[in-house]
Amino acid sequence: MKLIKLSVLALVALCASVEACEENRSTGDMGIIIERATGSLLIVEHSGNQVLCRVDGLGDLSHASAVYSRDQAYAYIFARDGGLSKVDIRKGKIEKRIIQGGNSIGGAISQSGKYIAVSNYEPGGIKIFRSGDLSLVADIPAPIKGSERRSKTVGLVDIPGEQFVYSSFEGNDIFKVDMSDEKNPRITQIENVGKQPYDALVSDDGRYYIAGLFGEDGLAFVDLWQPEIKSKKILQQYGKGEKKFPVYKMPHLEGWAMNRENAFLPAIGQKQLLVLNLQTWQEQTRIDLKANPVFAMAQPDGRKIWVNFAFPDNQWLQVIDAMTLEVIKTIEAGKGVLHMEFTPRGDYVWVSVRNKNEVHIYNTKTLEKVKTLPAKSPSGIFFTDRAHKIGL
Amino acid sequence: MKLIKLSVLALVALCASVEACEENRSTGDMGIIIERATGSLLIVEHSGNQVLCRVDGLGDLSHASAVYSRDQAYAYIFARDGGLSKVDIRKGKIEKRIIQGGNSIGGAISQSGKYIAVSNYEPGGIKIFRSGDLSLVADIPAPIKGSERRSKTVGLVDIPGEQFVYSSFEGNDIFKVDMSDEKNPRITQIENVGKQPYDALVSDDGRYYIAGLFGEDGLAFVDLWQPEIKSKKILQQYGKGEKKFPVYKMPHLEGWAMNRENAFLPAIGQKQLLVLNLQTWQEQTRIDLKANPVFAMAQPDGRKIWVNFAFPDNQWLQVIDAMTLEVIKTIEAGKGVLHMEFTPRGDYVWVSVRNKNEVHIYNTKTLEKVKTLPAKSPSGIFFTDRAHKIGL
Repeated sequence: MKLIKLSVLALVALCASVEACEENRSTGDMGIIIERATGSLLIVEHSGNQVLCRVDGLGDLSHASAVYSRDQAYAYIFARDGGLSKVDIRKGKIEKRIIQGGNSIGGAISQSGKYIAVSNYEPGGIKIFRSGDLSLVADIPAPIKGSERRSKTVGLVDIPGEQFVYSSFEGNDIFKVDMSDEKNPRITQIENVGKQPYDALVSDDGRYYIAGLFGEDGLAFVDLWQPEIKSKKILQQYGKGEKKFPVYKMPHLEGWAMNRENAFLPAIGQKQLLVLNLQTWQEQTRIDLKANPVFAMAQPDGRKIWVNFAFPDNQWLQVIDAMTLEVIKTIEAGKGVLHMEFTPRGDYVWVSVRNKNEVHIYNTKTLEKVKTLPAKSPSGIFFTDRAHKIGL
Repeated sequence: MKLIKLSVLALVALCASVEACEENRSTGDMGIIIERATGSLLIVEHSGNQVLCRVDGLGDLSHASAVYSRDQAYAYIFARDGGLSKVDIRKGKIEKRIIQGGNSIGGAISQSGKYIAVSNYEPGGIKIFRSGDLSLVADIPAPIKGSERRSKTVGLVDIPGEQFVYSSFEGNDIFKVDMSDEKNPRITQIENVGKQPYDALVSDDGRYYIAGLFGEDGLAFVDLWQPEIKSKKILQQYGKGEKKFPVYKMPHLEGWAMNRENAFLPAIGQKQLLVLNLQTWQEQTRIDLKANPVFAMAQPDGRKIWVNFAFPDNQWLQVIDAMTLEVIKTIEAGKGVLHMEFTPRGDYVWVSVRNKNEVHIYNTKTLEKVKTLPAKSPSGIFFTDRAHKIGL
């Protein structure tokens, strides 16, 4: 009886909290939570740590990500089914939705905010759209040597100068596209960067692009500031001696943390975090963890690193002191910890706990949980300050 | 006749451009320009590079600065006459204005957005207000050894954990205040950091606090991550052999640029920029400039450094390539280049040219001027993405 009462109360609370968005709210402290199983998202605010409203009808959000318009009025959602949706986060309404490909894997927004790029598994290549009306500007295939097929593209990021960088999984290339002149996208190809790049990241200044390689050990590394851009291999031992994993079990490179001195990256198939020195891009040390890490995220101040873990150990969170490189707290949040997002200046971290249908909010100073929000199978969490960042 | 026509047209354009703000605009791409001589400010947006409206009645803005609320709906303006104003940037209206001191020198907003701190020359010390209603929370004097007077405070910045750091000019101290418990502000004093700290900065991760010293050579350096915070001297030769300047002619430390590898700081009394290595905090090299630098600002991507100059050479701008450390362009903008502000992801830099009553907008890729906006004696320019940054 008591349980039922609590459930009803929880349901009432859930309904009450998603009634309507306020049209005239300022969006600087807002964000969205992807509800992966229901094709919906929650619009939230982190000044009062609240859910404002829910938006339905976004398609298959099982691997969805999002970027924001320059004015922070709109979120663009990249859905797994190839859907690209423009959502007005103040009204809580889909302004426009198109199906742009068969199997989309993520996207980016250009420096000016004018262009949205999407990378696709099916039909391969990338497509670029105007952010205003989602009209197509460019459809750029990624070649596979000796084949007519298009390569899958991965690791799509924006860099300054209206440019995007991405990798081709079957093509073994890294590409840069300059959209300064929208009628003539200027494409630079870096060939033979290594076998099967499956994911990538760019440093927060847009300078270093690093692609993970599925088909061999090590990582492909490009310094985009050089006049002639080239790829070289770093961390040749990365992945060495490990049995091969399916791509979806490989570490997410967006899950690297970087502060001023170090990068922290999940070891493949090991219960460890690798610590790289950012001067040399060589391994400096390793940190032992409770299980196999998936994401390692640095707080905005770089002071602590938060780590989540692969199935079947995905109920855990560990927090590392970035100065002493020691684990300072282990938290059992619940099964299915999928994503962590820091508030812009880092007072809180929001954590998706999928199997509990909850988002947990932790104070990054005390490391205590301060609030729990109900959410249906939550995965990605994206706050609006991403509008102002390079490479997301 | 032609000249008169042009002036009338310019006047019409000016009037037309400041009619009214749109209440329902999203603020992510907005900002303000301080009009120092008229106690007014312009509310602007950088997607279309436009002036939206003007707000009057802000007092003496001759050395004014600003911070933003967490939701980016409000700007807080710190005026030289001790005025603290809360401006609704969507309505273009002053929501509240108080005179909090006799001679204010700048302020900061806490990590949560709850507290606004102001540092004062008169009566000295700092005051902390609630950001909501500008009610006083704490009035913290800065002591002078062997005196009943309060010291002037300078170099006030926010750091994570609801903390502020500042220096006392006559007290020769650096202070940290923790506002986590608003009824019991916890104050840490670092004594004898050097003679007469006159200005300071904090690194963008909130870790390193560096104060310039008016009364001796070198700089005071504090690593705020250490469990026991202490001050040490760095750059002992900084200022050595130079005749003493009045404080207002000393370089602004907020004018330091930092990218991943280097810090760039104006040399005192010399036509040079010092380049520090951020691993050692030692001088690495110097860059020769056209005149005595005031501010050196790194683009958000750290790729180029923009420098302005002291009177009587304040019509110039120079742009430095951060990789080659060479001057790549010299621009004659007009007399009274006072401030530079980059758009959040760095596509443009807005430059105040006081004596021409203009703000110039440059494309950071082509280094060409793309637009000129009319403004009355413009000085500081502040975009809303500052709401999401540490230490501003």
